Amino acid sequence: MDKYDKIVELGRRRGFFWPSSEIYGGVAGFLDFGPMGTLLKRNIERRWREIFIHRHHGLVYEIETPVIMPAKVFEASGHVESFTDVIVECLQCHKRFRADHLILEQVGEVNGIEGMTTEELDALISKKGVRCPDCLGQLSKISKFNLLFRTNIGPYSENVAYLRPEAAQGMFVNFKSIFNSMRERLPLGLAQIGKVARNEISPRQGPIRLREFTIMEVEFFFDPRSPNCALIDDVADVKLRLLTEDMSKSKISEPICVNVSEAIREGYIKSEWLAYFMALSTRFISELGAPVESQMFIGKPPEERAHYSAQTFDQLVKLERWGWVEVSGHAYRTDYDLSRHMQYSGQDMSVFRKFDSPRKVSVLAARPRVEAIRADHEKNTYRALSVIKGTDASALRSKLSTGPVEIEGLLIRPEHVEFFEKEVMQSGERFIPHVAEPSFGADRLTYLALECAYLERGERVVLQLPPSIAPVSISVFPLVNRDGIWEKAYDVYRDLKDYGLIVEFDDSGSIGKRYARADEIGCPFAVTVDYQSLQDDTVTVRFRDTWEQRRVQVGELRGFLQGSLSMR
Amino acid sequence: MDKYDKIVELGRRRGFFWPSSEIYGGVAGFLDFGPMGTLLKRNIERRWREIFIHRHHGLVYEIETPVIMPAKVFEASGHVESFTDVIVECLQCHKRFRADHLILEQVGEVNGIEGMTTEELDALISKKGVRCPDCLGQLSKISKFNLLFRTNIGPYSENVAYLRPEAAQGMFVNFKSIFNSMRERLPLGLAQIGKVARNEISPRQGPIRLREFTIMEVEFFFDPRSPNCALIDDVADVKLRLLTEDMSKSKISEPICVNVSEAIREGYIKSEWLAYFMALSTRFISELGAPVESQMFIGKPPEERAHYSAQTFDQLVKLERWGWVEVSGHAYRTDYDLSRHMQYSGQDMSVFRKFDSPRKVSVLAARPRVEAIRADHEKNTYRALSVIKGTDASALRSKLSTGPVEIEGLLIRPEHVEFFEKEVMQSGERFIPHVAEPSFGADRLTYLALECAYLERGERVVLQLPPSIAPVSISVFPLVNRDGIWEKAYDVYRDLKDYGLIVEFDDSGSIGKRYARADEIGCPFAVTVDYQSLQDDTVTVRFRDTWEQRRVQVGELRGFLQGSLSMR
Repeated sequence: MDKYDKIVELGRRRGFFWPSSEIYGGVAGFLDFGPMGTLLKRNIERRWREIFIHRHHGLVYEIETPVIMPAKVFEASGHVESFTDVIVECLQCHKRFRADHLILEQVGEVNGIEGMTTEELDALISKKGVRCPDCLGQLSKISKFNLLFRTNIGPYSENVAYLRPEAAQGMFVNFKSIFNSMRERLPLGLAQIGKVARNEISPRQGPIRLREFTIMEVEFFFDPRSPNCALIDDVADVKLRLLTEDMSKSKISEPICVNVSEAIREGYIKSEWLAYFMALSTRFISELGAPVESQMFIGKPPEERAHYSAQTFDQLVKLERWGWVEVSGHAYRTDYDLSRHMQYSGQDMSVFRKFDSPRKVSVLAARPRVEAIRADHEKNTYRALSVIKGTDASALRSKLSTGPVEIEGLLIRPEHVEFFEKEVMQSGERFIPHVAEPSFGADRLTYLALECAYLERGERVVLQLPPSIAPVSISVFPLVNRDGIWEKAYDVYRDLKDYGLIVEFDDSGSIGKRYARADEIGCPFAVTVDYQSLQDDTVTVRFRDTWEQRRVQVGELRGFLQGSLSMR
Repeated sequence: MDKYDKIVELGRRRGFFWPSSEIYGGVAGFLDFGPMGTLLKRNIERRWREIFIHRHHGLVYEIETPVIMPAKVFEASGHVESFTDVIVECLQCHKRFRADHLILEQVGEVNGIEGMTTEELDALISKKGVRCPDCLGQLSKISKFNLLFRTNIGPYSENVAYLRPEAAQGMFVNFKSIFNSMRERLPLGLAQIGKVARNEISPRQGPIRLREFTIMEVEFFFDPRSPNCALIDDVADVKLRLLTEDMSKSKISEPICVNVSEAIREGYIKSEWLAYFMALSTRFISELGAPVESQMFIGKPPEERAHYSAQTFDQLVKLERWGWVEVSGHAYRTDYDLSRHMQYSGQDMSVFRKFDSPRKVSVLAARPRVEAIRADHEKNTYRALSVIKGTDASALRSKLSTGPVEIEGLLIRPEHVEFFEKEVMQSGERFIPHVAEPSFGADRLTYLALECAYLERGERVVLQLPPSIAPVSISVFPLVNRDGIWEKAYDVYRDLKDYGLIVEFDDSGSIGKRYARADEIGCPFAVTVDYQSLQDDTVTVRFRDTWEQRRVQVGELRGFLQGSLSMR
């Protein structure tokens, strides 16, 4: 059994996680979290919320938008067109597989496979004799499979909607109205922690690749002319292990270790805000238990980046079975998404940038050609004139570039309008903000924390989870269930519990067994009430990681544990 | 403008909530929560989690299961068959409407409409001349519309799945494995806070009726032979305003006010655990701002109850526009769901109840009829015998009740088996736990909290949100932005923020304007730093609800506010 198998076994036995709907045979790509797993996952989400959102209150805000969104949103975002994987079907048993994964499994590493066209992949399959892994049947030609889960809203089948594959679009479509309600200030970060769904073709990596998972992401909007991060000094010394696009191209496989200032100065990271969030991520992932030395950021070449990204770093952590696994993505999405939504919705997504002092600028203007208009619209000449004057000149030119258009019921032809540049004084200009996006999957991080914490001591399993995310903070044991010891232990338990902590009371089996149970769920502290407690009002606090024991006064217990848990 | 319209206006202006995907025209039944709305909603969820889950750690556990679940789960739960609404289509404009709502709108109150068959509704529509509300066209016959959102998992269209309409099924399908991992103890509560989706036909009540919302529910499993609630004393004196099924039948419309003990003694509430959770709900809803006098529990008659429920109370709160609105549901689901999943999955969902001492009990047994078997299975007689002996007698009888069945490849006929009762000593018996379920919608409660808090003072809006759920706990203002006052205010702000509170810093506009802004988002305390602060290290704390001001030492500020916020 490798660590993964051991964690899966522990996960089931102690209520962390297991495949969904198991009584019906399970469904690949879906996970259920039990009592301990849910506490752990909530703690990871809470820490993320504190680090990425609440500490930045006033700059970054959490919002919440639905999982189900209308088709239009994902047409604009490009997902309907581009969020696809390549798929082949076995011509014999009709099972379907993800083509690139199948090739990698049967052929081994193929350079540049992520950038290949379907034709190139077809050729590769036939050249290398890739077959159905189940029945060895021949494979079909490759087709593209869209990974969006599709559904309908209301009683009309034409109202197509999709489950969001990322929370980001909820931030983009709302950016402008939130920008307005939050006093029109940039930079502005919008964040979400919520469910997303990706209809993976045949996920086979347990908690590492899920069809439904909890995403935690920030869309951070800033003015590309003022790209500096005001908080960069707070993280200037954070060490990042980077493998840039250029290094990968030069076949370098060992990352360099630089601090944030250097990474920006050397141009490894194109956006200061992206660098800032990469630094926070390094700290956050360290807090979950993965030391910086087992982390790395890898710059993705254009063909491997999502369709919206100008630069992407994946943060990877090395896991025992799965190798280097992505734990967060850091994409510089530029103005791609806002521009697309502006185009698809017809709503203005731009914001105003004030100049230091008013400037003379040259702008496009439209002058109606009265003669030409009168020739076509004898009775409506005046209306046609005002239509032309009432329309934004750039928009009008773009519309007319492909021929005549109907505006407010009137046919306007290119020859009706003359375009020219004119000079005007402006106090500022409109622009579309750029976006830096850090994005995490909470489910995968829950597994990561378990793998990092997993330790065997002889026959015993100890989960050395950091106290800030451990499902249960304290276990309280009465040494025996008589002579008033049970009652005293229960009082201690109630007192700690009323303090708002997750505390367990365990009064069955030997103390050794109880310690073992507490170690297995990663409970950092065990408090035992014994005969001495009745005399001097002290208890034994036992530390999970060192098995060291210390006597503490009951009255000082809260403070002692609070310090040790580094809670607020 | 009524209160609803005012809250909708405030909601948009100050970042609480608005219709989803507004830049694409909005989608009925979906809501976006902005920065303030999300903080408020998270606080409501946090309080619910504390009250219903964390305080009961060891008895109630939060779990997390996916929104997307395979069809089989909802076939077992009865939703595929019964989770429907009646729908009519206009024969002229082809719009579709919820039939019962249309009738109520055009005919007025109709007694017993919720229990009517489609034929009875058809008759009513034709008798009363109900027409299309949009074009006055004639209406089609009624059909049933299933409210489950449907989708497919993976690249096979036959893998139908649904978005869950309640989180409950995730608890039911997992009950047994969690029961096992949590040391096989009853009672056991499993809870979830998560998204659910109901494809309402034409929702038109804003945040009150949503197609996607956050449910917060507990499925509380107990032994029906030990139905007593060990915690009932904690809530014995909580007053409940009840309108039972019987009272409704007797045309009583005014609820009685009884305490929990009485409600149980008089048999108004059939399960002590149901009563316990109704008491917690009363307290919880009061904490959100709705006084007990504007709450009531109404017992639902059988025809209005969900298909799984033996007794249901809806907790209602009176809202200005919407009248009495359901804020939580309390269903006694008996063993319906576990029994159905046992039947559909073939997995054992029963648990063991130990007798006080072993008992002689009569059990069904099966005796193979060797002659009859040999006649049919000459060569496999021995195997047929062991198949019959190896199958549970009750299960076998039930299978054979409809004729021959194939078991392990052998056809077994009713005449192959003789059933008889035999006496055996048993140390206990197996049974299926019963379930009490309290269930809340977090989005509706967010609106409820806003409506309860909404107050106008002259021209000003004050949201008197309880401090425990207010989005922002404290606002800090420098009186002026010079003479070191700004810096001191910023220090005060940083200190409070580092303490883990949501604090805003506002340095623009007059102090009056800043107070007004803070009042509008329900911020309970404003701290102003002024010239006096520089001399004696005090600040002014101003209370939102009374507009009273008090000077407090900076050093004592944390403690003072902590007490006032009644935080832990």
